[in-house]
Amino acid sequence: MTDLIFEQPLNEKNRSYLRLEYLYQQLQDNLEQDHNQRCFTPLFALCELNERCDYRTDILKDIDQQLVILKKWQNLPHVDHAQIDYYLRSLNSYRQQLYACERIGLSLKQDKFLSALRQRFNMPGACCNFDLPQLHYWLSQPWSVRQQQYQQWCIHFDKLLKPINMLLQLIRNTAEFKPAIAKSGFYQNEAQSPLSLIRVKLTAQQQVYPTISGHKTRCAIHFVDFSTNKHSNNDIEFMIAACR
Amino acid sequence: MTDLIFEQPLNEKNRSYLRLEYLYQQLQDNLEQDHNQRCFTPLFALCELNERCDYRTDILKDIDQQLVILKKWQNLPHVDHAQIDYYLRSLNSYRQQLYACERIGLSLKQDKFLSALRQRFNMPGACCNFDLPQLHYWLSQPWSVRQQQYQQWCIHFDKLLKPINMLLQLIRNTAEFKPAIAKSGFYQNEAQSPLSLIRVKLTAQQQVYPTISGHKTRCAIHFVDFSTNKHSNNDIEFMIAACR
Repeated sequence: MTDLIFEQPLNEKNRSYLRLEYLYQQLQDNLEQDHNQRCFTPLFALCELNERCDYRTDILKDIDQQLVILKKWQNLPHVDHAQIDYYLRSLNSYRQQLYACERIGLSLKQDKFLSALRQRFNMPGACCNFDLPQLHYWLSQPWSVRQQQYQQWCIHFDKLLKPINMLLQLIRNTAEFKPAIAKSGFYQNEAQSPLSLIRVKLTAQQQVYPTISGHKTRCAIHFVDFSTNKHSNNDIEFMIAACR
Repeated sequence: MTDLIFEQPLNEKNRSYLRLEYLYQQLQDNLEQDHNQRCFTPLFALCELNERCDYRTDILKDIDQQLVILKKWQNLPHVDHAQIDYYLRSLNSYRQQLYACERIGLSLKQDKFLSALRQRFNMPGACCNFDLPQLHYWLSQPWSVRQQQYQQWCIHFDKLLKPINMLLQLIRNTAEFKPAIAKSGFYQNEAQSPLSLIRVKLTAQQQVYPTISGHKTRCAIHFVDFSTNKHSNNDIEFMIAACR
């Protein structure tokens, strides 16, 4: 049974965080395995998003908020102090690095090789060897060489992506999965306090996927039959976690 | 020694053919190995190019031209008749298929799953699981299932891409590689009859890549040092094929 987790952010900030986390996972994936020219897609997407928006203010605010919460927890008995210390240390270090760093991704923007590629990368089929002979040359280098260089490019986003990963982890930790049933493929939920993330877990064997909508204290889930691409009228058993 | 071949089309038609061939190679690559959501990039690029331009007229004209040439060759002694028969049979069959087929890629455009993906695929980082839960579901299916479906999608472009592959092969066959030297990194060539494709072969160890420009009977090649991204002043030994 393959478990599938679908997540829906309930505010704009988490929407951005999830988007960046998704790209971070793709960078990691490209670092582990040679995907040739495909490795540039998430890298350029990160450059693009990062130029459009400065995420630092949001992240720093969230880190400060989490530090206050974690420090309160530190004084409680029956908590995992080692784990709390780990979060405190990491967040403090991320905070320092974010304050100290120059505009993220700036040096990638100034890199001539990357700039030439980036200009053409969103055009359909525009990375032929006559469009970008330098890419063709680059790809002929051994994977170990390219891997090292790719890592040097990715590292620029660590200051942004590592704290986001941890912040999302802390958000996900605020709720555990509980069983639920969507009668005739529909489910509605109302919470006492504002939520920031809805997580839905089901198995691939159920052959449906959820479309989730929501805002602050409310969420609604429609399950869609993958093969027909239409709302499923079956009762769907699933797990839900409503994170704060 | 890794041989690297760089090609420069000298007319718009070959430029399109090389672009489509490049995408075809990527489709094949994605059919052989699981590249997850990355497999959609060349597929959507093909959809896009194919909607912008109807390549059939050009291909049919070229097939007819090649058929005339091949039929002349068939009557000559000392030629590989089996090979010529193979080209004649293949091109005739491609010709029939191209005449008979509906607008290529039409059914892919009408596919709801692909359309939903395609809308978001060019936006940076816009394929998160909350953007496209159906993609997340699709990716959870076994590779064998996805591979089969991907093949069904790719097959729509075979009518276009298979003849292009063969036409390019015939163009490449019109010239053999000959040794040449670019004095101080620069090389110029003038031909008696119009050319359609310049091919340059060198080894990755030379650490340079060519930027080729040209038109009909002329071509000029500048070699660029990959590490400095500047014109190389060294004498560069390479191989060149000027195809008609």
